[in-house]
Amino acid sequence: MATIVVHSQTSPVQDAEALRLAFKGWGADNKAIIAILGHRNVHQRQQIRKAYEELFEEDLIKRLESEISGDFERAVYRWMLDPADRDAVLINVAIRNGNKDYHVVAEIASVLSTEELLAVRRAYHNRYKRSIEEDVSAHTTGHLRQLLVGLVSSFRYEGDEINAKLAQTEANIIHESVKEKKGNNEEVIRILTTRSKTQLVATFNRYRDEHGISISKKLLDQTSDDFQKTLHTAIRCINDHKKYYEKVLRNAIKKFGTDEDGLSRVIVTRAEKDLRDIKELYYKRNSVHLEDEVSKETSGDYKKFILTLLGKHD
Amino acid sequence: MATIVVHSQTSPVQDAEALRLAFKGWGADNKAIIAILGHRNVHQRQQIRKAYEELFEEDLIKRLESEISGDFERAVYRWMLDPADRDAVLINVAIRNGNKDYHVVAEIASVLSTEELLAVRRAYHNRYKRSIEEDVSAHTTGHLRQLLVGLVSSFRYEGDEINAKLAQTEANIIHESVKEKKGNNEEVIRILTTRSKTQLVATFNRYRDEHGISISKKLLDQTSDDFQKTLHTAIRCINDHKKYYEKVLRNAIKKFGTDEDGLSRVIVTRAEKDLRDIKELYYKRNSVHLEDEVSKETSGDYKKFILTLLGKHD
Repeated sequence: MATIVVHSQTSPVQDAEALRLAFKGWGADNKAIIAILGHRNVHQRQQIRKAYEELFEEDLIKRLESEISGDFERAVYRWMLDPADRDAVLINVAIRNGNKDYHVVAEIASVLSTEELLAVRRAYHNRYKRSIEEDVSAHTTGHLRQLLVGLVSSFRYEGDEINAKLAQTEANIIHESVKEKKGNNEEVIRILTTRSKTQLVATFNRYRDEHGISISKKLLDQTSDDFQKTLHTAIRCINDHKKYYEKVLRNAIKKFGTDEDGLSRVIVTRAEKDLRDIKELYYKRNSVHLEDEVSKETSGDYKKFILTLLGKHD
Repeated sequence: MATIVVHSQTSPVQDAEALRLAFKGWGADNKAIIAILGHRNVHQRQQIRKAYEELFEEDLIKRLESEISGDFERAVYRWMLDPADRDAVLINVAIRNGNKDYHVVAEIASVLSTEELLAVRRAYHNRYKRSIEEDVSAHTTGHLRQLLVGLVSSFRYEGDEINAKLAQTEANIIHESVKEKKGNNEEVIRILTTRSKTQLVATFNRYRDEHGISISKKLLDQTSDDFQKTLHTAIRCINDHKKYYEKVLRNAIKKFGTDEDGLSRVIVTRAEKDLRDIKELYYKRNSVHLEDEVSKETSGDYKKFILTLLGKHD
């Protein structure tokens, strides 16, 4: 379930005018910006952007970028983009950041449904005049390239069928590969990038039944290079993306100085989807509320905005 | 331009009833079947199939399969399928036939536009409850797998932009790889499977300018293993698919006993698209008309049907 508190029966024109007013004078009225945009769903935000363009012949997103700054700006900018376009931007930034951020590419490609990923590939064409796989493969080599290109190019079947025998065979292949460490990465890549998620979860369950440990925990024991880290991310996102996001939030908050990029990414992309479930997982795992931790670790307008997306009442 | 002579102002219901009549008694009236289906475009054929199902509660394609046989049946069956579904079937058959037919997979993936290939991937899900890449990768290994999976998973950008510097760099990469024979296949695969077709043609042109020979001719001199053969097919299909098809037809006809599968595939899949251009190329290259060659090399109802698709007047 979502966390944001959407105000219904709003008018895009009135919202656009109120935002224009908030931009007046020296320094924007950030409180007003948050009060409006933090309580509108994706459809409403698109309508506001359209109305603003029509009324003032100016792109609202560009104006926001010039009015606000820092983490607050980055979070609002991402919030304002259409979800597929936002993911295209996140992937592009991650590719340009190199191996430090390849987990973001694997995360997006593995969490999204087949049609959602396709929409991101289309958005990437429109925005960058290139394909995702073109940029990913130009920046990587070897098995890491094969894995990342396979993940972003996948068009997975989404039926419920499970082939139990195949799950057994492929759990064994994964086991052999992980055990040897220098194992048959190509087969692991094939399995991870082509099988349906339903089938993969069956394979991961089979692995756990046989070896008494989940494949992702097993990999964690050995994680060393970028390939294995990326593999680990993909497996966790396919297996249980909410648990994965809980951990991203935990790491972002625990980190010295807080990892605002990770924090914003999860909150902005999941606020309208399943952030409430992720918040509950966070509380179960850490015995503290996510909002309280965010309150402690962030400040200013960024803090207010993130807490609004987390569903905190004003 | 297309070759088939489409009769307009036909009625799907009348066509369905005429086909039903053609199936009556012992042995179908193949002449009637050809006279109807050989002169209907893809939309009309879909309407006939629908009307037939509604009138007689029977699938027209299944009925056709039971009424006719051999090469004629296979060609009519493929003709009756929706183009994306037909390509899904062709790919599936090719995968099951193994290395003998991988060029068909490469051909379809490389000739189709981005959206057409996507439609085939969807049709494959619907028909086989798996993804193309899942089946391709389960039957192949190593560089051949990487190349084929890359081709069928590609979602190429289709803009007109050309990066001349990139074309130069990547022409060199391809040259080095081809020269060494045991060269850097991974880079060649990356280039072939991710760049836009416009960019790739610029790269191939650059190669020819520098080395006085086209990359596909150069590869042909050395062609040995399945990987290089598949690479060769992909390059030819991207560079000039009409010329490629002309050669498939030439080889199919020259072959002892004729390669009906190749002949039918090209004629059925291109009859509504650009088979007239391919016919002209055939005449230019061979100084004989394609129809005359087909007449000599085939027989019976199969021959009549293929010649009808080639635009021969009854």
